[in-house]
Formats: sequence, structure tokens, C-alpha cells
Amino acid sequence: MKEVKKGLEGVVALDSQISFIDGVKGILKYRGIEIEKLSDLSYDAVSFLLIHGKLPNAEELENYSLELRNERRINRRLLDILNFCDFENESMDALRTAISVCAHFDEDSHNISKEANIRKTTRLVARFPTIVAAFYRLANGMEIVDPDPSLAHGANFLYMLRGKRPTEIEAEAMEKDFILSAEHELNPSTFALRITASTLSDLHSAIISGLCTLKGPLHGGARKGVMEMLDEIGSKDNIKPYIQERLEKKQRIMGFGHRVYKTYDPRALVYKEIVRKVAVEKGDSHWFDLAEQIESTMYQEFVENRNKPIYPNIDFYSGVLYKDLGIPSYLATSIFAIGRVSGWIAHCLEQYADNRVIRPRAHFV
Amino acid sequence: MKEVKKGLEGVVALDSQISFIDGVKGILKYRGIEIEKLSDLSYDAVSFLLIHGKLPNAEELENYSLELRNERRINRRLLDILNFCDFENESMDALRTAISVCAHFDEDSHNISKEANIRKTTRLVARFPTIVAAFYRLANGMEIVDPDPSLAHGANFLYMLRGKRPTEIEAEAMEKDFILSAEHELNPSTFALRITASTLSDLHSAIISGLCTLKGPLHGGARKGVMEMLDEIGSKDNIKPYIQERLEKKQRIMGFGHRVYKTYDPRALVYKEIVRKVAVEKGDSHWFDLAEQIESTMYQEFVENRNKPIYPNIDFYSGVLYKDLGIPSYLATSIFAIGRVSGWIAHCLEQYADNRVIRPRAHFV
Repeated sequence: MKEVKKGLEGVVALDSQISFIDGVKGILKYRGIEIEKLSDLSYDAVSFLLIHGKLPNAEELENYSLELRNERRINRRLLDILNFCDFENESMDALRTAISVCAHFDEDSHNISKEANIRKTTRLVARFPTIVAAFYRLANGMEIVDPDPSLAHGANFLYMLRGKRPTEIEAEAMEKDFILSAEHELNPSTFALRITASTLSDLHSAIISGLCTLKGPLHGGARKGVMEMLDEIGSKDNIKPYIQERLEKKQRIMGFGHRVYKTYDPRALVYKEIVRKVAVEKGDSHWFDLAEQIESTMYQEFVENRNKPIYPNIDFYSGVLYKDLGIPSYLATSIFAIGRVSGWIAHCLEQYADNRVIRPRAHFV
Repeated sequence: MKEVKKGLEGVVALDSQISFIDGVKGILKYRGIEIEKLSDLSYDAVSFLLIHGKLPNAEELENYSLELRNERRINRRLLDILNFCDFENESMDALRTAISVCAHFDEDSHNISKEANIRKTTRLVARFPTIVAAFYRLANGMEIVDPDPSLAHGANFLYMLRGKRPTEIEAEAMEKDFILSAEHELNPSTFALRITASTLSDLHSAIISGLCTLKGPLHGGARKGVMEMLDEIGSKDNIKPYIQERLEKKQRIMGFGHRVYKTYDPRALVYKEIVRKVAVEKGDSHWFDLAEQIESTMYQEFVENRNKPIYPNIDFYSGVLYKDLGIPSYLATSIFAIGRVSGWIAHCLEQYADNRVIRPRAHFV
């Protein structure tokens, strides 16, 4: 039997047509198209691309967008069932429970035919934002805001969250956030859910495996960690002492470095420009300036003392963006999941289409 | 980057001290002890062995058993929340939702320290049977039966399910079923949940990934498939036509063959003896005789026409056992999970103890 590196580092576990990553050059493509180009499209278009393998034509996009908008509403009974949740302290648990309960209400739940999976796909992609926004409002004692079918995926989410329409730039930022978070090859949550799908378990179960895995602080939970770090650092004077103290204690600086990227995470570059725009519109660049300074301090520190540069990853500037959009840190991982669900589903469908149970061996020591 | 075989077949993904399998000789050991020896112990002792890495001494076993018995009761609010479930048609979904809801009631839920994990372990191992039995009774319009602290893990489960104490032989059979199902190295559910744990997500989330994955018909769902097949075959006359028709259509015969075992699955051998005993006590060997005949017909068919033998796996005789214990097929995967939870937890704790995020690569095609 072949032995592989711990954490399966550098091991090619499967063939996939979904993502291409060049970690040395800093390139990420979904279905062959660079992330920089995709971030100018709508989330609906990118979701269609991921799930169907090609960009939609005008008619396909119109149909898919309409289907998504029609499926945004959630069963109020779902919220009645889940009203025991303490959403602020357990938002990812609540989302996991909610998607698990959704399966009970889905007539296609156990049907893994291609047609049923496509129906479930639309419902899942459409309802993730509604669930997260509803939980947020309930947790804060506010009335739930119904989805607005005239708004795009990102704008509608911010509208349901805040109860008022976002500015155009905020809407664009949210849309890009969902696009940039939508897919990233065999990250742990995606790999875990492909294993779930490989036993021919159903789509909801696979997505729940993804949620369980995304929650971890070494994965999707890192975005929350970045937001908490920004609060803790607070002002520029505190950057250097904060970083040095943590590095001395061999603690992680959230939002820096990546298993795959050895250069600037291409998603972080796109995020940075969005954050700059949002800050300019707000007329308040506190978080953006702080973030840039953290970035340059980290770079300098690593080049000078460790002889290698370090770059921000997706979690860093997305965390900064959420600060500027007034999103609390406990929502960060759930919002990541709203974007990621399209990529997760694409991987499930790819696994079902040419399946072999994923079952490696352990070496007994 | 190294490319590996589809489904990670034959790939050693990690080092582990938990299981040893020799698939050619048909040997399975938990923590270095043969499954045949372990099946004569109590489930509590085997659970302790898996989780703590050594067999308990008399005092440790007494303490662990007492803790488990004290933790069997579940919060009635859990059942109130879940009363919308259609348990017969979605028992694994219901169990998944239930464990997800349990996390909301667990004060240690987000704490992944060793101490907190050990506290959660006891609660999880103790309450899986209570949840499954309660769901079963509710679904069948019967009053829930409280756990009986004077009964062992297997006997108590059958008692809660039926509302009356099982015979000694039935109790022994249930106990052995839980032991034989408790652990099996990097099967898909265990591998999926180690990935979840590798992001430092919490124990409940990891167990839920396991449940999501076990559900699949190519994994834990196979036991249910065996029971349905036994019903479909019904009588000895029908064995040959059933098998030949399915083989001609290149369909799977449930409960035969295994990715790892190239000989008799050692667990199936132990099961077979239990089933024989239960059948003798009942004075009705219908299912046992039918099963033996299916086994020999399959063996002959494969030796004669495919030039290789085929053997039953764990799902085959466990399915027969459940038939003889009067357990409906929709409970089969949930009961598998009751046993497996100890192995799952052992793997989580091993992953936490020496962690590296499990994140392979995909090859873009």
C-alpha cells in the first residue's frame, strides 16, 4: 500500500472538472474561467456555471435566476421548530440543524436522481441566505424580512438581514463575496462531503457534512477568527505588538498563509479592491487601513525574520469586508456557507456521476 | 503531486492506533485485540477500549458503565422538537437531526478540550440507543420506555424498543452486534468525520458527518438493503432466480464482498454463530436457513462462473439477526450507528491529539 503525507498534503485524491488552482502563480479558475472575470458576473451565473459546467446563456440565466428567486421563501414551521436555538452563540450549529430539518420537509430528500438533485440544488442555493438572515433577525428580536424577488442574491441577503436595501456598492460587495467563496477544489469541507456522496447518501446529508467541516476554525471558522482579531488589534499602534506576541508564542495569525497558495491568494486581491470601494463610499477607511497595515507588517516580519514572504488569504479581506458591512463575526462562517453551497453541490453531482466509494486505509502503528 | 487510485483504494491516508485489518487473512483487531475475543466482552468495555486505548480494569469498567447508565436519559424537549419527523421513512435523517439538536443542549458543545470531549463521549454513547428507541416507539404510537439502569447496553436497547426485557440470548446478540459494529478503521463515515475533526470542528459536528456518510446504501445503508433482499427472496426456491437475475443485470447482491476483505469478513463469522443461537432459541430457523443457502449459492455462483469466491460481509448476517430480533429494516442503519459511535469518537480524539488538516488536491481534467 502507498503511504502518503500527513493531511494528504500534495496528494491528488481524484480527478475533477470543477476548479483549477495554480498555487505558485496564484491562479484560481472555476470551470476554466479566472476568478477575476467571474467576480464581475452575478452569483446566479457563477452558481449555474459550477453546477452545470458551463456559463448560462441569457435564457438559461433568466430561468435559473427566476427559479432561485421563487424558491427563496422558507417554511415558517422550520423557524418554529428551531426557535430554541441560541443563534449568536451557535450560528453554525443552527444552520446545520436547519438544513437537516429542511431535508424532512423536502419531498425529494431521498431521491438522488439527476432531476431530483437539480430541484434540490435550486432550493438549497436559494434558501441558505433566507435561513441565515431569519436566524439573525430572530436572535436580535427583530421581525423576519421576506425575500425581495426584485433583488439579486447578494443584495437580497443584505436586505433580509438589515430590513432595508443596501447601496449599490454594498450589494456588489456581497455578490462578489458569495462568488469568491463559492468554490475551492478539495478543501476539507468539499472533500468530506464527496466522501458522504460517494456512499450514495443524499444531497442534504452531503451538504450537512460540508457544514460540519466548514465550521472548524482551521477552515471556514477562520473568517470569524479574522474579525475577532481585527477587534482585538483595534488600532495601528497595536499591530506590531499583537503580531510579535503571537508569533513568539507560536500562535496562528488568522487570515495569513494557505496550504495551496505560495503567493497572494487571487481571491484576496479581488476582495481587497471591493473593501477599498466600500470604505470609500462609507467615508470611513478605519478597517481597510488597519488591514493594509497588518498585511504589510506581516509581510515585513516574515521576509526579515523568516526569509519567506506571507500573504493574506480569502479569510482576511472577507473578514474586513464583513466589518465594513456591519456584519457580526458570529455570522461569518454561515455567510461563507451561503456562497460555498454551489461549489459543494457541483462536487456532489460530479461524485454521483462517476462514483467510487472513497475508502482509504490507515496504517496501524 | 502524487496521483492515487480512484476511491483512494489501497492508499494509506494516515497512521492510526485504533484498528488493524488483514483483509487477506480475515483478521480484525481493535487496539490490538481480535474481534472474536472482544465479542465476549461487554459493549461498555469495548467502548472504553476504543476511546481510551486500553481495556478497562474492574474499577474503570464499573465507573464507565455507571456513567453511561446515568447518562442514558434524553431531554424530553428534544423529542418535542423532533415530533414532526416521519421516522419510518427517514430514520437516519431523524437521527442526524436529533444529534444536531443534542449539540444545542450540550453545555460542552463547542469545547474541544480533552476533558470536555470525554464528557461528551459518555453522553453520546449513552444516548444514541435512547434516541433510536424513542423515535421507534413514537413512530408506532407507543409510549416511550425509560432506560433501565440495571440492564447492559444491548439488553437496555431492546427493552426500550419493545417495552419488555429480552431473553438472555437476545440480549447477548444485541450486545455483540454493537461490539462488532463499533469500529472498522477508515471506512467512509470514519474518514469523513476525521476530516471534519481535522478542521478542529467539534465532536457533535464530526459525529454528524459520520451519520450523514453512514446513511449511504454503499455503506451503513447496506444492512437495510440486506433485510429488504431477505424479504424479497422470501423462500429458498427463489434464491437462485433472484441472484441470477440480478447478476445478469449487473446489479449488486447486498451483503456480499468488501473493499478490504478478500476472504470471509471475520465479523460475519461471529454474527453467524449468534444468529444460529437466536434461531435455535426461537425454534424458528427460517431466516438463518435462508441466509446460509444464499451464502452457499453465491459462493458456488462466483467460483463456477467468475473463478473467484465471494463471502458475506458484516451487513449480511447482521441483517439476518435483525430479522430474527423483529427489528424493522428502517431501523438497521440507526442501530449500526449506535454501535459505531464509539469507534467514531476514538478516531476524532486521535485526530485532535495529533492534528493536521486533511486537505488533498484534485487533478483538473
